[in-house]
Amino acid sequence: MSDLRATTDAHRGQPEPFRWEGVDELAYKEHDTTFRGVTRRVLFGAGDGQAVEVRYFEVAPGGWSTLEHHGHTHQVVVLRGSGACLVEDRVIPLAPHDLVFVPAWAWHQFRATGDEPLGFQCIVPLDRDRPALPTDDEFAALTADPAVADFVRR
Amino acid sequence: MSDLRATTDAHRGQPEPFRWEGVDELAYKEHDTTFRGVTRRVLFGAGDGQAVEVRYFEVAPGGWSTLEHHGHTHQVVVLRGSGACLVEDRVIPLAPHDLVFVPAWAWHQFRATGDEPLGFQCIVPLDRDRPALPTDDEFAALTADPAVADFVRR
Repeated sequence: MSDLRATTDAHRGQPEPFRWEGVDELAYKEHDTTFRGVTRRVLFGAGDGQAVEVRYFEVAPGGWSTLEHHGHTHQVVVLRGSGACLVEDRVIPLAPHDLVFVPAWAWHQFRATGDEPLGFQCIVPLDRDRPALPTDDEFAALTADPAVADFVRR
Repeated sequence: MSDLRATTDAHRGQPEPFRWEGVDELAYKEHDTTFRGVTRRVLFGAGDGQAVEVRYFEVAPGGWSTLEHHGHTHQVVVLRGSGACLVEDRVIPLAPHDLVFVPAWAWHQFRATGDEPLGFQCIVPLDRDRPALPTDDEFAALTADPAVADFVRR
């Protein structure tokens, strides 16, 4: 009935929680030391007839995603665990099913601060710009706030 | 830093589970008798710098969404409860965090078959066509399969 049938199964269940049939675990980033203990899975993507990619990131206990910013936005839904994120200049505690919006060019970082992984879904445009890391000057400005300085990792 | 900040808060927590700060409960559809016990919430939408709307639907125990189809696709993540859905000619049991893809023009319907609400996130293009209901002939063809006939409601 539709070409879209070929690319995505109608249903992908979970042989174990947060591990989906036909969804591979991917490296978060290649050749990069700006993060710790993060994996990536593409839940929905190109070929689905939508302009977005829906990714699932899992941050291991004690881990963090890259502190970065970019011109595209993130629409985030927390799916498991607990932790916190930086968005611009705010450190925000997170619980399952909380919503996070990361505006364009907002510095952001996710950390798993508890004993279990922090898992979250993150929607991005299929066509998007590459993230940029903070310069030393930008990092100094960001961490002038002690709460931010205490939270961020790089 | 960005115009996008004005439209969506960086963080929307939950005063109670699956009820988000600043996210209103909306009617699923207006003046319509094709469904039972369904509410709608817009988690992310226009103004977020993405081409999609992310909705949260909740189907009350015993309820069902409209049996319909359309030219746009759905990317669905189950968030709570249990139930089942029809996608094209398949009846699929659902559990939290299962993924469902509804291709273009696939008939689909969601039902809460257990004792608790079935809640799911559904991503659609911001710019999309209107759903169509099955004609009597289409409904007859669809329900020629006894498993489908047993499942669907209209």
